[in-house]
Order: sequence, then structure tokens, then C-alpha cells
Amino acid sequence: MSSPKLLKPEDIATAVRWTPQVSFAPLSQPRWLGLAEASFDDPSGQSRKWEVCERIHKGPITGKAKDVDAVDVVATIRASASQQTNGFPTEDTILLVLQFRPPTGGWTLEFPSGLLDNGETPETAALRELQEETGYTGTVVAVGPSITYEPGITSSCSKMVTVEVNPEDPLNAKPVIRRDADEWSLNPVALPVNKLLQTLHKLQESCPNLRIDSRLYCFAAGLHFAGRTR
Amino acid sequence: MSSPKLLKPEDIATAVRWTPQVSFAPLSQPRWLGLAEASFDDPSGQSRKWEVCERIHKGPITGKAKDVDAVDVVATIRASASQQTNGFPTEDTILLVLQFRPPTGGWTLEFPSGLLDNGETPETAALRELQEETGYTGTVVAVGPSITYEPGITSSCSKMVTVEVNPEDPLNAKPVIRRDADEWSLNPVALPVNKLLQTLHKLQESCPNLRIDSRLYCFAAGLHFAGRTR
Repeated sequence: MSSPKLLKPEDIATAVRWTPQVSFAPLSQPRWLGLAEASFDDPSGQSRKWEVCERIHKGPITGKAKDVDAVDVVATIRASASQQTNGFPTEDTILLVLQFRPPTGGWTLEFPSGLLDNGETPETAALRELQEETGYTGTVVAVGPSITYEPGITSSCSKMVTVEVNPEDPLNAKPVIRRDADEWSLNPVALPVNKLLQTLHKLQESCPNLRIDSRLYCFAAGLHFAGRTR
Repeated sequence: MSSPKLLKPEDIATAVRWTPQVSFAPLSQPRWLGLAEASFDDPSGQSRKWEVCERIHKGPITGKAKDVDAVDVVATIRASASQQTNGFPTEDTILLVLQFRPPTGGWTLEFPSGLLDNGETPETAALRELQEETGYTGTVVAVGPSITYEPGITSSCSKMVTVEVNPEDPLNAKPVIRRDADEWSLNPVALPVNKLLQTLHKLQESCPNLRIDSRLYCFAAGLHFAGRTR
């Protein structure tokens, strides 16, 4: 447990400076991931196959449709007049996380997210992950439908949970983050909602080893697009 | 090659009615995917490992950072007065694709997308994929930075390419789609940009075997969010 330092855009280049050499070795006895071959007949009766990767910590790959196995949390802190006097941001911000992602060999800026614990609802998982990863708590205002992560390769699916964080809530007075052991690299980040797409572009240009996650990028692109559509 | 039927929201439930039984078998000799173990030392010197899945058709897993291996295409058709007389939509629409995705065992609605051919630029790949998958061509107006697909599992990365489609361009007079052999299930879809998030929610509620891809969903969420932020 530790008190979080909520990184601002200008802190990110320093945070991602460390990037290790990652070596990759073939994996004969995987513990977390498995490969399977999916087989089915198309509507014309032709037999078809497709290679699939899936998390296997819950058992063998069955292709059984899941409703949700993870949550992505869109959490915003609304600026208010009183905040301007106590150190909180003076404009609306969105809470994000920056972490080293071994599969990509670099850092990724993304929504707080995580797998559901056994029996957990998306709402509970979202507030738990938000608290663990950023230190803040909030109120769930919307839960989306099941969305695919990388449907050409994996069965992973998530729900987007929208959360409003009230910085004046006493529970947020002394935020504490609780990283899982595999989240040693995780840093919470607060970015202004205004001009989010431009901020992401600038960050990525100034940090060659930083990638933006596609969900965050597409959310920012939608925000930007709204400004120029009718 | 065939002339595309651009599905409207009300056609989607019929298009996804067919859903096969998919069986999954362990895969000992994968052709497209491979598993590897990533190893590196964290900043404190502790040795860390992480399991990774990667496409292997270009060689063994090396973890060498790629700038881009795929494109996602955000293509919009702007409505104009003259279109109202020739059968085109009378409001701004976004071009999407609906396809059966074996890893998920169901259908996914997503942006047109695809892997870059050897030596291809993101711009060229985006216009090629858009043409192959929807029949339409357009003008590239923006190319985004490298974005991660599912950074907890794979190294896949993409760039978002924004395209404007002019329905009055003579090249769009007789659109023809060219599906790859593995895109037998692909259908182009046109959805109104206005109230996109609500449309996606309704579609998913009425079609239990339809999932929305997370990139499309987050873009729609950003559009929606823009309407209620200041």
C-alpha cells in the first residue's frame, strides 16, 4: 500500500524512461495462456478452422461464450470551484494508468482495468480496480454491454464501466493504491478531458517507448470527432 | 467480387441469426499463433516473466517493437442535399463491418481493419481494406499513432486511419467488395453517427450473439461523453 502520486502529462516522459531488454523464449508449459484450434461449419456446410489464444487459468479452452471477464473503467474527476483551493485539478480530468506491458516490450497508457474476481459484478470490480490502481473511489453511472478485446485472436471480453469521482468525498481525502504483485510498474495518471486526443498525440511523440491503448485512443478520437460532426 | 449490400441497423439481427457450434481442440502445431515467455529484470533488479501470444507468420516471436501491424479505419459518409435524391443515407453515417469471429464464438461489429501487406503504408492499407471490406473508397484525413490491441496478452498494434467517403465520387458509383477467403462471413454496415452509442446498445440487446468491438464502443462512448462534458 502506498500513497499515489497522480502523474500529470509532463511527468510521463520521466516515468517511462526505464525500459528493459526483454527476451522471448518458446513456451512449452504455459500456465496462463493456451492455444486451441476452433472448428465449425460455415452456412454453406464448408468446414472451417481458426487459431485461438485464451487465458487458461480457469480451465481448458471451451469457447463457451462469456458475458464478461474484465472491466475497463472510464473515471472522471469533475472540477469544482472549491477544488481550486485544495490542490486538485482545476479542470475535468480522466483517471488513467501507465504500466510496463511485457508483451509489447514498452509502456502503455490505458484505462484502469482488470479481470473480475469469482462472482464479482462489473460494478464492484470496476470500483475495486479503480481504487487499487489509482487510489480513488467513485459512483458507477453506467455499465456497457460485452465488448471484444482482440476478436481475431482471443475470446477476451470486457464491459466499460463509467465512474464519477468526487474529489470532496472523505474517502478520497487520503487515496492509497494497492498494486497486485504483477502491477509493480503501474502508475496512476490524470489527464485533462479537454483536448484529450491532442494530449495523447503529444505524449506519444515525445515518448517513443510509450503506446496508447486502442480503447483510450478511440474514446479520445470520439470526443474529438464530436467537435467536428454535426 | 460482389456488389455490397450495406446493412442498416434493422438488418443486423437477421444477418447474425446464423451461429454455428464451434468446437475447440488443443493445438500442438500452430501455424498462425505462438506462445512465448518474456523475461526481463525490473528496475529493482528482480527477474520477471510474462506469457505472451503473438502472430508467427512473419517468423518467431522476438518482442522487437513494431510501429504498426494493422490499421483500423474510421470512415464516414457525410450526408449532402443531393444524396437525398439518389438512395444514399440522408444523415452522416459511419462504415463498419459485421463478421463471425471464431475466437469469440459469435459475431462482432467493428471498424473495417486488417494487417498491413509487406511494405504497405497505413494510408494505403486503410484505403485497400476499406475498399475490400465495404466497397467504398475515400480520402485519408488523419493517421494516428501506434495503439495497443490487448497489451496484457499480445504485441499486436494498430494505427487508426480516419477516412472521408464522398458518395458522389464516381469510384463509389458501383461499389464492389473483395473478401479474402477467411472473410466469408463479412458484411459491410452503415450506422448513423448521431446517437451511435444508443444504437450499439440497442443492437446488442436485440442480438445476444452479437458483440461490439471495444474500439468501436469506446469511439461511440467518446462521442456520447462529449455531449455531456463541458
